[in-house]
Amino acid sequence: METRYADDSLALHTDLYQINMAETYWADGMHERKAVFELFFRKLPFGNGYATFAGLERVLDYLKNFHFSESDIAYLRDELGYREDFLDYLKQVRFTGDVYSVVEGELVFQNEPLIRVEAPLLEAQLVETALLNIVNYQTLIATKASRIKQVVGTERVMEFGTRRAQEMDAAIWGTRAAYIGGLEATSNTRAAKLFGIPAAGTHAHSMIQAYKDEYEAFHAYAKRHRECVFLVDTYDTLKSGLPIAIQVAKELGDKINFRGIRLDSGDIAFLSKEARKMLDDAGFHDTEVVVSNDLDEYTILNLKAQGARVDAWGIGTKLITAYDQPALGAVYKLVSIENSAGEMEDTIKISGNAEKVTTPGLKNVYRIIDRENGKSEGDYITLHDEDPASEERLKMFHPVHTFVSKFITNFDAVNIHQQVIESGEVVYKNPSLQEIQQYAIGTLNLLWDEYKRSLNPEEYPVDLSEKCWNNKMRNIQEVRESVQEFMNK
Amino acid sequence: METRYADDSLALHTDLYQINMAETYWADGMHERKAVFELFFRKLPFGNGYATFAGLERVLDYLKNFHFSESDIAYLRDELGYREDFLDYLKQVRFTGDVYSVVEGELVFQNEPLIRVEAPLLEAQLVETALLNIVNYQTLIATKASRIKQVVGTERVMEFGTRRAQEMDAAIWGTRAAYIGGLEATSNTRAAKLFGIPAAGTHAHSMIQAYKDEYEAFHAYAKRHRECVFLVDTYDTLKSGLPIAIQVAKELGDKINFRGIRLDSGDIAFLSKEARKMLDDAGFHDTEVVVSNDLDEYTILNLKAQGARVDAWGIGTKLITAYDQPALGAVYKLVSIENSAGEMEDTIKISGNAEKVTTPGLKNVYRIIDRENGKSEGDYITLHDEDPASEERLKMFHPVHTFVSKFITNFDAVNIHQQVIESGEVVYKNPSLQEIQQYAIGTLNLLWDEYKRSLNPEEYPVDLSEKCWNNKMRNIQEVRESVQEFMNK
Repeated sequence: METRYADDSLALHTDLYQINMAETYWADGMHERKAVFELFFRKLPFGNGYATFAGLERVLDYLKNFHFSESDIAYLRDELGYREDFLDYLKQVRFTGDVYSVVEGELVFQNEPLIRVEAPLLEAQLVETALLNIVNYQTLIATKASRIKQVVGTERVMEFGTRRAQEMDAAIWGTRAAYIGGLEATSNTRAAKLFGIPAAGTHAHSMIQAYKDEYEAFHAYAKRHRECVFLVDTYDTLKSGLPIAIQVAKELGDKINFRGIRLDSGDIAFLSKEARKMLDDAGFHDTEVVVSNDLDEYTILNLKAQGARVDAWGIGTKLITAYDQPALGAVYKLVSIENSAGEMEDTIKISGNAEKVTTPGLKNVYRIIDRENGKSEGDYITLHDEDPASEERLKMFHPVHTFVSKFITNFDAVNIHQQVIESGEVVYKNPSLQEIQQYAIGTLNLLWDEYKRSLNPEEYPVDLSEKCWNNKMRNIQEVRESVQEFMNK
Repeated sequence: METRYADDSLALHTDLYQINMAETYWADGMHERKAVFELFFRKLPFGNGYATFAGLERVLDYLKNFHFSESDIAYLRDELGYREDFLDYLKQVRFTGDVYSVVEGELVFQNEPLIRVEAPLLEAQLVETALLNIVNYQTLIATKASRIKQVVGTERVMEFGTRRAQEMDAAIWGTRAAYIGGLEATSNTRAAKLFGIPAAGTHAHSMIQAYKDEYEAFHAYAKRHRECVFLVDTYDTLKSGLPIAIQVAKELGDKINFRGIRLDSGDIAFLSKEARKMLDDAGFHDTEVVVSNDLDEYTILNLKAQGARVDAWGIGTKLITAYDQPALGAVYKLVSIENSAGEMEDTIKISGNAEKVTTPGLKNVYRIIDRENGKSEGDYITLHDEDPASEERLKMFHPVHTFVSKFITNFDAVNIHQQVIESGEVVYKNPSLQEIQQYAIGTLNLLWDEYKRSLNPEEYPVDLSEKCWNNKMRNIQEVRESVQEFMNK
């Protein structure tokens, strides 16, 4: 692919309609009007009680480098027929706007902006597709990993999914997102190198097959590798793999560090208990039982309920593809735009589905934290000129069932966004991946356990301020009136 | 990412255990023994009756460029502690083997090799993960697209999924695979450029919102774009969007080519029929109704059953992520290896699950085509020294239910593999993507309709020759005896 166009850029990594709209705005002189877009999802994935945001590092990289390359312009001209005047303009387009975002590892919830883009309309429009492509996947996987880690508890969890990932970027960025969500290591050596994630892995069935014989194979491996985890299920776990692993470990004694065995098939509940017993009986109490084979939070919960004796979990397909829900439905919606008089005006999209009606206006999201217990009472979305921190007593009410409400006092209101790009310049320094993971794990303490359980968690409140809610109702009313006006014409 | 290591290579895009095994083989002097690995899946995805192979172009590119870069070697040394002698060897490793593969667009089935790698053990082992990563995803999406196209029939189908794809490579290579499977166009402009796929798209809701008003927005779009498909569901499809689109088209007359309208929400069955009626009543008989919104083969079948009047389908999330089964489980198994005497010996992997027991030996796959009707009777797997074409009367029997059998006469036996790499050199010229698509569509004619229906298709026979089956039984027996031998010691 890299060979076909040496200057392949990501500016064309967008839906064609974005370019058509850009041309429309440009031809109409609308392209520099300031626009505000918000990126958000409507529903938490996996029935989880929270999501873990990821993708910002790649988003910043993309926006910083945004430009149409020569071959992009040539393609738009020669193959798609765009005219020279517009292409001349496109050639010099860079991203010059402001971006506000939550940080990677942040707890995020339904219907609240994760990223807010304030930029000339044409630029803000062109970057929509790539931002969604990045954030949708990385946030999905960070969330799945965090969910798995909640079920696992203290044992180690490793990412093993590359061979089943949806192409190479997913393997790489999915591994990074999984690490943010709390995993401890990965088998993908390139991801380990690129992001400084611990690499994990020993050997596969094919090595046993190459030597024909487990005894030969384990000895060969041990000759060169001091740290030994032997895979014991190539022929027969209990009759062959395990006893031979133990025999080899005994023969080699201090020459190796016999770390344990791995099971990759069969009845993990039964075999892990038998393995633990055989290892203990042979005096190898400090060894680990490592398991893999289509695991996810559901099978892990089940295995634990059956008393499986597992020290480390390798998770492949089900994590890297988010198998039970392989897409997060984040969208990117225009909420405010400059009018011809230079004033900002709110915009709305109506829909037959009530939950798809957007919330107009430039907004802030505050996390409302109870000062007494340090737990979050919910998120509170305001219009940009409100300051909930200055209020003594905050009324929070459900944005759909508005009669469900509560009053909060003695709270901190923490704005969850920070500016990451100012006039096109990145003003945010990415933390190290380890710091991001630590933040992601630490911030879960804001949630009561009821929000963190994997099955039927409590619904975390994401409420609109009264002003924000009234503004939405007013916008809906205005659209209704203007449709009615058209009908009456 | 590209900034962190200028020489980022794909050699590390592998599981760490592959490198540990490579080191073991190398230290033991086994690394140059000739090994034969086969890549295959055990189960057709989506309950479909066939799969459509894709991924070869990228596989060839990967193998041709396989090498460890300086920063790869430095990482293995400094961070993972590999020793200099082995690293010195790795530095000069290239892929020098032979590769046989089915072509892209080929019909493929369960338990038959799609790719066969014959190479020095170390090389063949190192490339496993990347090959699976590429082929698993691309074949999955080509198959999903072909399946959708079967249900759609002659109407156009467009790929709209980038924003929900699992990161950028999936958007790009998934689009290419979808095109192979039979889709007509994509909204992803970069994929369109890179692969010469027709690009499709007009405008989004945000354009209506930017103008506040559909009348203004459609006019603005039409000023610069002669080909007009108007999106009509931003505020109210039947009361506002559609009548305004018709009004604008009437006002502009010949100044535009009013191609039709797009629906992206609401009750598609109802709205598409109403839209067709309103367009026809206004005299716009040649316009199209384009629909999108979480569609897949199931919803399309349903919409058709309800008499929806749709001319073109935009498919997003459900195709690009293969939502109902987001991973193909292809594996890569050692089937034969050179022994210390320089002879090839077959290998097998046993498993508690009978369907996971591998079939040993270097094998060929023949498609058995009835000369009278041109339809395929099934695929027939032989050991490499068999020639079914020379047989008058072929016995085909089910590899599990061996009593299910039939005799075939008057047939062609077509070897479905061809050599694509010889001693590390690519000897296969990739056809154009259009040629691949044509091949994929044409070769479906080999199948009776019963194999192509989306629900409960007939099971296509993939049978072993008697010699191949006997060889497998002998290998199983040998492993059993050797396990028994160990137990008796």
